[in-house]
Amino acid sequence: MALKIYGLAMSTNTTRAMICLHEKEVDFELIPVNVFTSEHKQPPFLNKNPFGLIPVLEDDDLTLFESRAITSYVAEKYKEVGPDLIRHNDTKEASLVKMWTEVESHYYDPAVTPIIYEYFVAPFQGQEPNKSVIESNIEKLKIVLDVYETKLSTTKYLAGDFYSLADLSHISSTHYFMQTPCASMINERIHVKAWWEDISSRTAFQKVVGGMTFGQSDQK
Amino acid sequence: MALKIYGLAMSTNTTRAMICLHEKEVDFELIPVNVFTSEHKQPPFLNKNPFGLIPVLEDDDLTLFESRAITSYVAEKYKEVGPDLIRHNDTKEASLVKMWTEVESHYYDPAVTPIIYEYFVAPFQGQEPNKSVIESNIEKLKIVLDVYETKLSTTKYLAGDFYSLADLSHISSTHYFMQTPCASMINERIHVKAWWEDISSRTAFQKVVGGMTFGQSDQK
Repeated sequence: MALKIYGLAMSTNTTRAMICLHEKEVDFELIPVNVFTSEHKQPPFLNKNPFGLIPVLEDDDLTLFESRAITSYVAEKYKEVGPDLIRHNDTKEASLVKMWTEVESHYYDPAVTPIIYEYFVAPFQGQEPNKSVIESNIEKLKIVLDVYETKLSTTKYLAGDFYSLADLSHISSTHYFMQTPCASMINERIHVKAWWEDISSRTAFQKVVGGMTFGQSDQK
Repeated sequence: MALKIYGLAMSTNTTRAMICLHEKEVDFELIPVNVFTSEHKQPPFLNKNPFGLIPVLEDDDLTLFESRAITSYVAEKYKEVGPDLIRHNDTKEASLVKMWTEVESHYYDPAVTPIIYEYFVAPFQGQEPNKSVIESNIEKLKIVLDVYETKLSTTKYLAGDFYSLADLSHISSTHYFMQTPCASMINERIHVKAWWEDISSRTAFQKVVGGMTFGQSDQK
């Protein structure tokens, strides 16, 4: 039975999981969850994830939420297929993958997501983007990107000279971020820019990018 | 050479790493970082962690920051010693450990830490705890603890009937939380209370709890 992903093709957290599944050439079915009608905040979805958030993965009797737990599971289960996203044969490299995934989760994402929100969701709701929210998160993001620029001047990817879950975790949010006026923060850092061009050109991401339509004019 | 942990014996993030090291009976040295003089925001500490945060682990040529990446590394490297905190022989159980660790990191900790901060740090700075911060985080925490209560009515620990990194990750912050007037939120949920009494009675935690003196009257 094919794996099931409950989520939304335009959602950054859903596509994080989907990119990983494509990297591993896993056959899966995306089952849309209508967040606009709050389907994720009601049963039966709450039985899958009591926190009422997408995505959720189902693999036989396993139900898993939290996108980074899903990518870890997929990368581990299919470790022999495609790129080794978790460096399963090297405990030290594996620890660096986890460390930079934590950095994405605790520093990068909390700065990037509010910026995306202001530029995409506020106009969608007929409001102006909140400048003070944008500015405070730009300050936080500068610190993170300066660390990345230094790191990426010594290794091709965040955890080392190998593509891993740490890089993959950044792709879907950065895709939307690059459509905001803040994209220059990536473009003006030459190593971060080269890294972004590399990871965003991967086939696995190209398979999901067409569905990442949030903010487009025909959006409901 | 013994592993080194740079941090502070009273810090929740440092003790998260230390509890894991004690579970695995690993010989390590705690090297104090004086956060009160901002030692962590200057070189040479910034060479260990460019984000300027404790703890940092050093193991020969490996330098690792982010407490949950450290616990993952320690649990993996010493997987044959003590309790199997990552369920390394079962991919599905391992994925549930990661999922509940993500829940701790993304839902539990962001609600508990501001409450601890208001009750411990604000008085330390001569201020009254901010009631609106406390109340909004109580609301967030209620949702998390209700999910925990339901889960812990079906399994002894969060990821299943086995103690894991997911439970361990909660201990140090909950220790301080239980000294606040909000402790009743744990005590009034019978399964959460039983779980807390279980995980906080473990020998590994008893080895660090004496150093968790933040808020005590002789505190500098």
